Amino acid sequence: MKQMHSQAPSLRVALIGHSFMGTIHAQAWQSAPRFFELGLKPEVAVVCGRNDDAASVFATKFDIPQVENDWRKVVADPSVDVVDICTPGHLHSPIALAALAAGKHVLCEKPLSNSLGEAEEMTAAAEAAQERGIQSMVGYSYRRTPALAHARQLVSEGKIGRIFHIRAVYLQDWIVDEEFPLVWRLQREHAGSGALGDIGAHVVDLAQYLTGHHITGVSALTETFVKTRPLVASSDGLSATASDERGSVTVDDAAVFIARTDKGALATFEASRFATGRKNALRIEINGARGSLAFDFESMNELWVQDNTGSRASSGFSRILVTEPEHPYMDAWWPAGHGLGYEHTFVHEIADFVRNIAAGTQPSPSFRDGLAIQRVLAAVEASAQANAVWTATNYEF
Amino acid sequence: MKQMHSQAPSLRVALIGHSFMGTIHAQAWQSAPRFFELGLKPEVAVVCGRNDDAASVFATKFDIPQVENDWRKVVADPSVDVVDICTPGHLHSPIALAALAAGKHVLCEKPLSNSLGEAEEMTAAAEAAQERGIQSMVGYSYRRTPALAHARQLVSEGKIGRIFHIRAVYLQDWIVDEEFPLVWRLQREHAGSGALGDIGAHVVDLAQYLTGHHITGVSALTETFVKTRPLVASSDGLSATASDERGSVTVDDAAVFIARTDKGALATFEASRFATGRKNALRIEINGARGSLAFDFESMNELWVQDNTGSRASSGFSRILVTEPEHPYMDAWWPAGHGLGYEHTFVHEIADFVRNIAAGTQPSPSFRDGLAIQRVLAAVEASAQANAVWTATNYEF
Amino acid sequence: MKQMHSQAPSLRVALIGHSFMGTIHAQAWQSAPRFFELGLKPEVAVVCGRNDDAASVFATKFDIPQVENDWRKVVADPSVDVVDICTPGHLHSPIALAALAAGKHVLCEKPLSNSLGEAEEMTAAAEAAQERGIQSMVGYSYRRTPALAHARQLVSEGKIGRIFHIRAVYLQDWIVDEEFPLVWRLQREHAGSGALGDIGAHVVDLAQYLTGHHITGVSALTETFVKTRPLVASSDGLSATASDERGSVTVDDAAVFIARTDKGALATFEASRFATGRKNALRIEINGARGSLAFDFESMNELWVQDNTGSRASSGFSRILVTEPEHPYMDAWWPAGHGLGYEHTFVHEIADFVRNIAAGTQPSPSFRDGLAIQRVLAAVEASAQANAVWTATNYEF
Amino acid sequence: MKQMHSQAPSLRVALIGHSFMGTIHAQAWQSAPRFFELGLKPEVAVVCGRNDDAASVFATKFDIPQVENDWRKVVADPSVDVVDICTPGHLHSPIALAALAAGKHVLCEKPLSNSLGEAEEMTAAAEAAQERGIQSMVGYSYRRTPALAHARQLVSEGKIGRIFHIRAVYLQDWIVDEEFPLVWRLQREHAGSGALGDIGAHVVDLAQYLTGHHITGVSALTETFVKTRPLVASSDGLSATASDERGSVTVDDAAVFIARTDKGALATFEASRFATGRKNALRIEINGARGSLAFDFESMNELWVQDNTGSRASSGFSRILVTEPEHPYMDAWWPAGHGLGYEHTFVHEIADFVRNIAAGTQPSPSFRDGLAIQRVLAAVEASAQANAVWTATNYEF
Ligand SMILES: NC(=O)C1=CN([C@@H]2O[C@H](COP(=O)(O)OP(=O)(O)OC[C@H]3O[C@@H](n4cnc5c(N)ncnc54)[C@H](O)[C@@H]3O)[C@@H](O)[C@H]2O)C=CC1
Ligand SMILES: NC(=O)C1=CN([C@@H]2O[C@H](COP(=O)(O)OP(=O)(O)OC[C@H]3O[C@@H](n4cnc5c(N)ncnc54)[C@H](O)[C@@H]3O)[C@@H](O)[C@H]2O)C=CC1
Ligand SMILES: NC(=O)C1=CN([C@@H]2O[C@H](COP(=O)(O)OP(=O)(O)OC[C@H]3O[C@@H](n4cnc5c(N)ncnc54)[C@H](O)[C@@H]3O)[C@@H](O)[C@H]2O)C=CC1
Ligand SMILES: NC(=O)C1=CN([C@@H]2O[C@H](COP(=O)(O)OP(=O)(O)OC[C@H]3O[C@@H](n4cnc5c(N)ncnc54)[C@H](O)[C@@H]3O)[C@@H](O)[C@H]2O)C=CC1
Repeated sequence: MKQMHSQAPSLRVALIGHSFMGTIHAQAWQSAPRFFELGLKPEVAVVCGRNDDAASVFATKFDIPQVENDWRKVVADPSVDVVDICTPGHLHSPIALAALAAGKHVLCEKPLSNSLGEAEEMTAAAEAAQERGIQSMVGYSYRRTPALAHARQLVSEGKIGRIFHIRAVYLQDWIVDEEFPLVWRLQREHAGSGALGDIGAHVVDLAQYLTGHHITGVSALTETFVKTRPLVASSDGLSATASDERGSVTVDDAAVFIARTDKGALATFEASRFATGRKNALRIEINGARGSLAFDFESMNELWVQDNTGSRASSGFSRILVTEPEHPYMDAWWPAGHGLGYEHTFVHEIADFVRNIAAGTQPSPSFRDGLAIQRVLAAVEASAQANAVWTATNYEF
Repeated sequence: MKQMHSQAPSLRVALIGHSFMGTIHAQAWQSAPRFFELGLKPEVAVVCGRNDDAASVFATKFDIPQVENDWRKVVADPSVDVVDICTPGHLHSPIALAALAAGKHVLCEKPLSNSLGEAEEMTAAAEAAQERGIQSMVGYSYRRTPALAHARQLVSEGKIGRIFHIRAVYLQDWIVDEEFPLVWRLQREHAGSGALGDIGAHVVDLAQYLTGHHITGVSALTETFVKTRPLVASSDGLSATASDERGSVTVDDAAVFIARTDKGALATFEASRFATGRKNALRIEINGARGSLAFDFESMNELWVQDNTGSRASSGFSRILVTEPEHPYMDAWWPAGHGLGYEHTFVHEIADFVRNIAAGTQPSPSFRDGLAIQRVLAAVEASAQANAVWTATNYEF
Repeated sequence: MKQMHSQAPSLRVALIGHSFMGTIHAQAWQSAPRFFELGLKPEVAVVCGRNDDAASVFATKFDIPQVENDWRKVVADPSVDVVDICTPGHLHSPIALAALAAGKHVLCEKPLSNSLGEAEEMTAAAEAAQERGIQSMVGYSYRRTPALAHARQLVSEGKIGRIFHIRAVYLQDWIVDEEFPLVWRLQREHAGSGALGDIGAHVVDLAQYLTGHHITGVSALTETFVKTRPLVASSDGLSATASDERGSVTVDDAAVFIARTDKGALATFEASRFATGRKNALRIEINGARGSLAFDFESMNELWVQDNTGSRASSGFSRILVTEPEHPYMDAWWPAGHGLGYEHTFVHEIADFVRNIAAGTQPSPSFRDGLAIQRVLAAVEASAQANAVWTATNYEF
Repeated sequence: MKQMHSQAPSLRVALIGHSFMGTIHAQAWQSAPRFFELGLKPEVAVVCGRNDDAASVFATKFDIPQVENDWRKVVADPSVDVVDICTPGHLHSPIALAALAAGKHVLCEKPLSNSLGEAEEMTAAAEAAQERGIQSMVGYSYRRTPALAHARQLVSEGKIGRIFHIRAVYLQDWIVDEEFPLVWRLQREHAGSGALGDIGAHVVDLAQYLTGHHITGVSALTETFVKTRPLVASSDGLSATASDERGSVTVDDAAVFIARTDKGALATFEASRFATGRKNALRIEINGARGSLAFDFESMNELWVQDNTGSRASSGFSRILVTEPEHPYMDAWWPAGHGLGYEHTFVHEIADFVRNIAAGTQPSPSFRDGLAIQRVLAAVEASAQANAVWTATNYEF
């Protein structure tokens, strides 16, 4: 028997970039409709890279019918509905602006841009496009970790109460070796900043997202522990091989900052690629009058919840395995205890993005949300450049 | 530019069953060729269930072109290369025997069968088929958890030394509620046994696989804590709704056993669906003269390794995040610290299965490996029925 | 100003043995009255060892006025009120019987004796003495770990509900090295048994104490992994130096057993000195219909509690720091979070013992409780000698 | 036989304060000579409080022969050799100065003083006294946690290499309740500062002690979340009962700061009494080029050590149970795995103090070390008062 159930209308996606994020997005575009009701049937119709051969290999693997090497051509293609930007930061703004102008929905990887000016322009363009029914979203994927989505619910429901402290770090160690080469992430012209924008941006986003607070000012230090590195011979994702010449590292290796929020909390942040032994330790803890939350992405299926409203003798941090059907996104997946991986946060992101396109509603986080994070990052850099001087974020909502 | 890279030859898969395992296999069949070089390009060409509507919905979601409701027809279809058996245990033997007879490669979910007799017949058929170039494999998926595959390497390399102890439990709690209904897993005629065959089988497999030891005898107790339950109104995976009538639970709720191995280790085992608060706690610890290993699937990206050959002052259990490119399967995935989920163990299983088909080699675990596990399960049941009497497993290798 | 508060009447204690347990008891005798209201003021008035010099050094350190080398003389001394037996197991029975006959209160280290016959005789003597106002107690010190005392309260209050599973191990590794010498603990004539009586006895006690269940039968395996060892040159606590000659190990290195309880639970036990990397891992987990408990002495200030009566989305194991004033014994100590050590379980034991003497009430665990544990140990040994045959414990209460 | 071993010469100690610290010091004075060779035999000869009755009860419990209520009298007493200051901070300076002037050795609780001026004066007095053979020490007790003493050794031996990051928090939650009363710790005139001096001081000390780095400047925020509280009716340690009137909290509830060190590390600090659910979470992590260390006092017997010099596949954080005889202080105690408690850090502190007195050498941390910490605390307060302005610590060594 041939199957005859009617398909949802298709949504043609162009993927720009096909390395780390490109791969995981491609996988997520194909998984999302299998596990979530989307209203539309997305398909990656085009992949675009700089190198035809590499892109073709990728296209074969991921069953993508078309390969291009000029993003301008892709963005102009009338058959494309969505542009998914998985390139280094300096290309986010030109591609996004062109795509929005061409009437494409845009999913743009984080951080939104390499400068505050770009972010403002992108936000204006996105909001104008929204009025014409064009949606845009920025890829702060960790928000869709079920444990963190659940954390946000708990805060919203008042389970944490008045918040006193936010404590957030994002620790990696992939460049502790002084001979690790000078990949694009270590170059200001491509990456905008170093650990700050790459991983610090995520914890800034989560701090605000989970609590509903806004960071009003910061005092910051940044450091580049290793000043020169070998130039890149070849690279792939976070790994790379070295050549004989050396160049200057032009971004921060680590950033630390303290902050205040509009609702009176104290917050501490740290982003580092020199936290030896920590591989992807995105950790956040929130302490409130009624309870606390703690999370570490290295154990991404767990949320630690403390309820301070019961008796002292029975109050402790409870290790919740966030794998129950009642937890966000989890009724789409496996039985309790059969955890998800990093990849699945992107499946959730893309599922939500498509649902918003189908419904004609604004996805979250919007470019404006992305801009708010850029304001914090810019304040951190300004503070660090001026000896940790207190620097307001000038947020407005 | 249209992409033109030549595809690997295709491998047409028929999926029998499309609920929990059917879903995760379908996903794995589509993911495997994207992340691993397989030599063949698998595609799920047919899905077979008992109910056309449910199967059609599934087929639409997973882009499967054909739907059937009679597995005999599927197995006879000359265009099918592989039969993937994701049905309850009582159907493993008839489907596998028919598929092997029809010259199909067979991936059969675990446990291999509901009885020792069936397992012996299946093993004979598989070995006969192997001579004709037909491959078969049994789905002990946890072996392909990178942390456990790495554990096996460490043992093989002699890092653990002479093994004294194996300590393995598989703990769940999904039927603690007395009103949870009488799903097929609680019925002997469909499931063969209860916690023993469903989850105990996995830890028996892992105990032998990781150590290279064979269990020679056991002394066992089993228990059915809740004797009658409501009949099923509807079910899905491990969840179900109850009707008004009740029926008898005809399998064990829990099994505990102690064992000896051929190389002199003591082993303890427990499988339970009544371990309140434990969702999928497949835990195994191995203690040897040179070191120890510990693992818990609830934290599946971690392996705890103790090296007993250094100084006492520096020896402890080390939490290895098994996410480095050097770890089994991990160079196909994301950067260090960006962990995998339960689903990925099946991607690895199917990748290895297809590679074996492409190479014309025997996949592992073979039906004979599955039979060895059945011997242990049969010995456990015999021992439990006779007041924990010591029961040899009669293994031979 | 001289202080003039009236002292409680004194209680003169004779300590027999002054090595590992002798030291910790001496410390506990002096700490108990400082932190607990006892009604009596204990003082260690005599210490008795085999060697005058070693005992004198000890007496000087611990401010003990009198030193003896013949326990018979000590037991006969009319000025002694309490005999505290901290010698190897073969001396428990003769010293305890003599002391009870002489009208002394007796604290006897665990296990109560090396044989069931001795334990029965000791229990009869203790119960006869009790009628004359003489108290006795056996030193199952772990019961007074605040986390475990709290666990018992939770079970008693019904927080765990009907119990399905008890899972208890006591793992050490101090004799993994084949050249570790043949100390008294490895000799049947002094120790009675090996890991079984030394550490297995504790988990048997706790399993019954925490749940209120009695073990009705067992099936067991024991093993001596290393059959001969160097004779001892000198020893101290669990450490020792080796001579050139070798002798036979006459006790078990490890014991594993499965059991049933009078109230329908399944239980698993393991005691081993070959669990490489585990130093003092006394672990117990209890699963019931309403919740679960888990404990590991390597983190002795923590009890993990799962409450199964709330929503699935919020149910997990909660790490309770058992350091609140509401927790057993803890109002005598420091503020929350300032944990106790191994030593303090003995301070609690001795405080409770003295309070019972002051009140004229039976301390717990009584010799009869100690006898009940001996019955289980004897059943384990009988089962292990007969190929794991099911062996009833013949308990009666 | 009466014991006749010659005693070490006695050292007569006057204890000023007998509540939380007074109690634990009294216990430590009596335990230290039992477990460590000291060369002198300390005895607490006098206890001094404000209230005769409370002090007498204490004296009776701890076998202290003399009770006083005026510390001036005690300090002047010619029979006193050592003055041990366990009073609130405002009394540290007057008592210490008087005691040093009277030729007494001084153990002064931390923080050294309530102001930088006092600390300078005390340091000068201590150094002058040292020339006359009078020793002094400040009570940063956590240094003597075996895990932390071991951590320092590892850093000294070069196991961590060039240090990039120090990450230290000290989190408590005992005043989250707004109705918790206004104890002395919440009043500037008695305590000098709040969380900063009380607990932040410890992590400042440890950060410098463990690494050998000095903090050169800070940027800080402090906050008082609850501005008024009920006045105290009665208090004991960290607990207290409330009266009907309210007063102002005049110290910080929490302090967060970022810092640089003289050797180029970035450091982050947080001290809070509003970290709901955290009871005594003194946590410190150090990341260096060759490895990392992590510690949490809530699990005080554990040190987590990462060795970055081996293969990536085998590198993880190793949980070292710091209970081996090779670890600092541990050969005095129990077998491996039988952990210590909070109390024992004070036994070690007092043992080391007495050994220094016996040897005529300077104990560590000296008053000058205490002063260095005061400089950091003062810089933190100055920075916090000026909107997180970067503030140098003006340390000199
Ligand atoms: N959501 C998250 O957690 C993460 C987000 N990201 C973000 O994703 C973006 C991409 O990062 P990765 O995938 O890690 O980098 P990558 O270096 O692995 O891949 C970059 C890709 O961009 C392509 N590219 C570069 N220039 C191009 C051009 N002119 N035209 C077309 N393609 C071009 C390259 O061919 C490559 O495929 C960055 O903005 C990064 O910040 C990266 C990792 C995680
Ligand atoms: N590797 C592993 O870890 C796991 C293995 N399994 C094994 O997988 C098998 C299936 O289990 P689940 O997927 O959990 O069960 P399920 O109840 O979720 O699915 C069973 C499927 O079999 C189909 N089926 C039943 N009778 C059929 C028939 N006559 N013809 C065609 N299809 C029929 C049903 O329609 C359903 O799709 C079992 O043998 C089980 O032991 C299950 C879970 C985990
Ligand atoms: N409650 C608990 O957790 C523990 C209990 N124990 C029990 O405590 C008892 C003693 O064990 P340890 O102190 O570890 O042994 P140990 O070997 O450290 O000390 C034994 C002591 O007995 C003394 N002794 C031996 N024969 C004697 C005699 N004839 N007269 C006088 N003294 C004699 C020795 O001089 C030595 O001081 C054993 O029964 C053991 O099972 C031991 C360790 C922990
Ligand atoms: N090393 C560590 O980790 C800790 C150090 N401390 C420090 O120890 C000191 C005392 O703190 P706690 O014992 O917690 O305070 P507490 O409030 O428990 O005890 C203070 C004691 O000082 C006595 N006192 C007050 N005024 C006095 C006077 N004029 N004359 C004689 N005695 C007087 C009181 O009677 C009371 O016994 C403080 O400096 C504190 O910072 C406190 C706790 C932990």
